[in-house]
Amino acid sequence: MTRVRIDLNISLDGYASSANPTPENPMGEDWGRLVGAYTATRTFRRRVLGDTSGAGTTGVDDAYATGYFEGIGAEIMGAAMFGLHSFPDDPDWKGWWGDEPPFHAPVYVLTHTAPRPSMPMQGGTTFHFRSPAAIEEVLAEATAAAGGLDVRVGGGVGTARAFLLAGLVDDLHVSIAPILLDRGTRLWDDLRGLEITHQVRSEVAESGTIHVTFTR
Amino acid sequence: MTRVRIDLNISLDGYASSANPTPENPMGEDWGRLVGAYTATRTFRRRVLGDTSGAGTTGVDDAYATGYFEGIGAEIMGAAMFGLHSFPDDPDWKGWWGDEPPFHAPVYVLTHTAPRPSMPMQGGTTFHFRSPAAIEEVLAEATAAAGGLDVRVGGGVGTARAFLLAGLVDDLHVSIAPILLDRGTRLWDDLRGLEITHQVRSEVAESGTIHVTFTR
Repeated sequence: MTRVRIDLNISLDGYASSANPTPENPMGEDWGRLVGAYTATRTFRRRVLGDTSGAGTTGVDDAYATGYFEGIGAEIMGAAMFGLHSFPDDPDWKGWWGDEPPFHAPVYVLTHTAPRPSMPMQGGTTFHFRSPAAIEEVLAEATAAAGGLDVRVGGGVGTARAFLLAGLVDDLHVSIAPILLDRGTRLWDDLRGLEITHQVRSEVAESGTIHVTFTR
Repeated sequence: MTRVRIDLNISLDGYASSANPTPENPMGEDWGRLVGAYTATRTFRRRVLGDTSGAGTTGVDDAYATGYFEGIGAEIMGAAMFGLHSFPDDPDWKGWWGDEPPFHAPVYVLTHTAPRPSMPMQGGTTFHFRSPAAIEEVLAEATAAAGGLDVRVGGGVGTARAFLLAGLVDDLHVSIAPILLDRGTRLWDDLRGLEITHQVRSEVAESGTIHVTFTR
């Protein structure tokens, strides 16, 4: 049975993206501090950076990083996460991840702009471009493509919130960096009562990161 | 050396007080869920309710509750926490805690309204009424009265934030209930970078409450 999963990095004050993005620093000024515990893990280094040396942390953060990559059959992401907002005039833009993106599955990019042909990449990733007007339809297509595996809504926070507010998410895992940003986009607004529809579990990693998981 | 301490209960989305207060339910509709893990502790039941039966939880939440009561020589609180906003026309209002309040120390109540004479209570608590216009002066008076013990800024969240924003707080402990309220007063606004001036430590209790402590 396919589950719809979200994993996000947020600050203690609930900001899930970082302010002041630029083309040179598309994730914004605080991104490195928000995701530092994740990018330090052995799993991230191996799966995303291709570092097979065994370097990286192996504790609680790495256990969540391993889970992040397991059992995903399709991914949905917003246009900004794919990079269309940073490079709107490049019809051949293929995302931030090089010729072999780390998804190894169909990725549905939600964009209001003109349709683009699908882009098959090395390693099993194919980018498809769909309208965000009907997220249920895109989710149905992604679920069919996932072949019984799970669908991840990868981000950014606006796309994640659209699925959360529509009640479509089975598993939400947030890695809370113990920092206060006071700027960016807040994850939690208008989500009162999520702990009633979902069960909550929390755990603190060696890095100080607080992992909170909502599951239904 | 006197330290200035704050302990607050907040929700996962950062709300430190609960919406829709009424005279019958002065802390608002969600207060019970915000503070439930604390009021379930053996220490709260003994120290605040006078329950000497030994009932109550004895785990991580209770360890923080015990720490809450240790080493406090004076307390500062806002008018709303004392109850002046709920009973503005009663010059003899003595707070919510009965004839023997659980402070056992001088308590400085910050209020813009007309000065009231100090109120000595049973058990060593005396309520003094001071203007919130100069919190540094009130803090100096409370520090002198504390005789080398610590000063707690008890709340509510507006008073706590005034001391935090002024950089006057040495120890901030928040008990984060794993619930999303989406209403009330937010604790964290305008506190960007508190993790730079303070060290952060986090721990999850058996109840699911996340205890986060900022210490300098």
